[in-house]
Amino acid sequence: MTTTVTSLENEIVQLSRRAKAASRRLAGLSTDDKNALLEDLAHRLSRAEARETLLAANARDLEAGARKGLTGALLDRLKLDSKRMDSMIRGLREVARLPDPVGVDRQSWTRPNGLQVAKRTIPLGVIGIIYEARPNVTIDAFALCFKAGNATVLKGGSEAIHSNRALVDLVGKTLEPAGLSDACRLVDTTDRNAIAIMVRQEEFVDLIIPRGGEGLIRFVAKTSRIPVIKHYKGVCNIYVDEEADLEKALTIAENAKISRPAVCNAVENLLIHERAAGRFLPRFARRMDQVGVELRGDGRTCEILPGATPATDEDYHEEFLDLILAVRVVSNLDEAVAHIETYGSDHTEAIVTENQATGEAFLNRVNSSVVLVNASTRFSDGGELGLGAEIGISTTRLHAYGPMGLESLVTEKFVIVGDGQIRV
Amino acid sequence: MTTTVTSLENEIVQLSRRAKAASRRLAGLSTDDKNALLEDLAHRLSRAEARETLLAANARDLEAGARKGLTGALLDRLKLDSKRMDSMIRGLREVARLPDPVGVDRQSWTRPNGLQVAKRTIPLGVIGIIYEARPNVTIDAFALCFKAGNATVLKGGSEAIHSNRALVDLVGKTLEPAGLSDACRLVDTTDRNAIAIMVRQEEFVDLIIPRGGEGLIRFVAKTSRIPVIKHYKGVCNIYVDEEADLEKALTIAENAKISRPAVCNAVENLLIHERAAGRFLPRFARRMDQVGVELRGDGRTCEILPGATPATDEDYHEEFLDLILAVRVVSNLDEAVAHIETYGSDHTEAIVTENQATGEAFLNRVNSSVVLVNASTRFSDGGELGLGAEIGISTTRLHAYGPMGLESLVTEKFVIVGDGQIRV
Repeated sequence: MTTTVTSLENEIVQLSRRAKAASRRLAGLSTDDKNALLEDLAHRLSRAEARETLLAANARDLEAGARKGLTGALLDRLKLDSKRMDSMIRGLREVARLPDPVGVDRQSWTRPNGLQVAKRTIPLGVIGIIYEARPNVTIDAFALCFKAGNATVLKGGSEAIHSNRALVDLVGKTLEPAGLSDACRLVDTTDRNAIAIMVRQEEFVDLIIPRGGEGLIRFVAKTSRIPVIKHYKGVCNIYVDEEADLEKALTIAENAKISRPAVCNAVENLLIHERAAGRFLPRFARRMDQVGVELRGDGRTCEILPGATPATDEDYHEEFLDLILAVRVVSNLDEAVAHIETYGSDHTEAIVTENQATGEAFLNRVNSSVVLVNASTRFSDGGELGLGAEIGISTTRLHAYGPMGLESLVTEKFVIVGDGQIRV
Repeated sequence: MTTTVTSLENEIVQLSRRAKAASRRLAGLSTDDKNALLEDLAHRLSRAEARETLLAANARDLEAGARKGLTGALLDRLKLDSKRMDSMIRGLREVARLPDPVGVDRQSWTRPNGLQVAKRTIPLGVIGIIYEARPNVTIDAFALCFKAGNATVLKGGSEAIHSNRALVDLVGKTLEPAGLSDACRLVDTTDRNAIAIMVRQEEFVDLIIPRGGEGLIRFVAKTSRIPVIKHYKGVCNIYVDEEADLEKALTIAENAKISRPAVCNAVENLLIHERAAGRFLPRFARRMDQVGVELRGDGRTCEILPGATPATDEDYHEEFLDLILAVRVVSNLDEAVAHIETYGSDHTEAIVTENQATGEAFLNRVNSSVVLVNASTRFSDGGELGLGAEIGISTTRLHAYGPMGLESLVTEKFVIVGDGQIRV
């Protein structure tokens, strides 16, 4: 698809404007109506005809991707198959079953003059999702935003254009009878200027959520005039205190490193109190060796573990996303906190300790988005924390911090009921 | 003060970096310590010596302002006198008495695997305040941010540079014994490039709050890489329903228009149901005439009030901030809501009605930041709503919407306590 910048810009402006208008109607939809539409979409996706259409569209993307020389990992992300379609359908039904986050009075009080004040949740409006070539994100992101009463403008990776077109077409057909087909629109282009244009639609789009690699997210954050909720990376830390139960520490650190090394809540740095290092590190090193994890340590670590690779300063900053772990011996909690402030990414940090006061001190002093005592960093996840489903993780502090569920896709207005009060 | 852009940039980067470091220490301060420092600042401001220094600095600003030909209104805003100093001191003591918004578990729950999860409030970090030549804002804004555990970087209007320097100097002397003098810093320059540099310090500054005219706010919003909380203007609407108590409607509309016409929560548009217009408008017009308010009406209004000026489309968009009110007759609630969506600014809208269902429908359908039934729009104010004090009003939906008190100057982290849980 080739377009001049001017006509592309015009198209994105129109689509954003229509999404804004649709978001006003969508905000008034009842919970039952929203759920029925989500169920209807699930039903449509489960029909053989839709599957065929989607798999054919996806096959075109896969062929083009293979011709372009995409790696196996990228082609795998791009692929739709029966299992992934089933997972999308299950996801839609789960979202339909979640409580509606809109119309909830989160707080209420009465003023001395009799005014009744409440803070009532309302949708954010229009959410722009910018993501890579993973067609499952199209349905997942739409569903969460829609349940919270928000319209979506979707810009997926160019390699998935045919798949996304087919998916959003199906969403549009589902929403059309309710007069809401503009409530989910695809920025239907492979033009690289589209993202820069999209993030300038501050008049119509209320929030941008980029999902993808650090490069994409930095570009969006730097260019956008619309608020962006994001995290760049997860350099998560575990601190094993001198009063740690070392069995727990071994189990938690292993789980945090190897259960899924390529995700953002996997641990990258292990800090160990100097008075526990002698007992802990040799056992830990044997265990890591058994599961194929390479340890990179500071001077004191390497004294205890002569086999460890010496760590560089960069190692402590690195999100390895791999079977590598940086280790440092620290003298006390202060040093552990200072390390986290210097090398962490405000994502997730855990302490292992049996001393409750030390645990509380860590929880209070470390202001990362998720802080844990005696549990794996891998719990830093919307589903695991009971948020129902996750639209993303924020490591910036405005609006939402940490894993974001449906409750982060709304805002609160002040609702005030009086009987004629005036301000004196 | 003349600086090259490079050295100015360097200075702002250093000051922001130090503010970030100070914000980490400040986040750990106890409520008592924060309150004691606020009280100490109030005490220092009340001493004769400090008053003399401040009034002398302010006199330099006033002289320079007069030479530059500032209007009387601008010189009045710039002026510090005993009354305003007393008001600053009172403000500091009030903020000290407000509950600490930090360290509050706003929600908590237990997961099936035994993990205890809480959302605990923490400071935002560093807040940049960009404002005009009103030295009282310096102390008010610092105090609220500080109470919520945030460091501040202040950029006041150039005309107030000497006053602000003296005020921030006093704040610095107060904070110094606690090792926190970097927690409140003035961008001490009259160089116009300072704002553009300040809003690029996304590595160190977490939030920008601009306070001032629409031009300043639009410039900041367009330039900033840091989230900006703002409102451009307040085009507030009152809708008088056919089932309104017309006495209440008269009183509320009058209060909303004339109690302080130049502020953002004053009413600018009055909408009247066609079946109440004949009874209401002649009485309302007499009342407005008595208090000197000019009415500008649509065709149907002018039929009932031949003396009214015909309104243009621009009149309904206008924030008059003056004794002028635009009036329109509407056929029903739908038309009132459509008018508000077209001409309103998401600030504050009220309905006057005795019909509870109509009131609820208005409250649910209108998603401005403050919506009221049977009360004056002038209540859209942090103090009036019981928030304690107000740092600003947001009409964008991210993070905060409507009047913002201390509770909007914090965010929430996830705090998780386990006893060895790992993710399976």
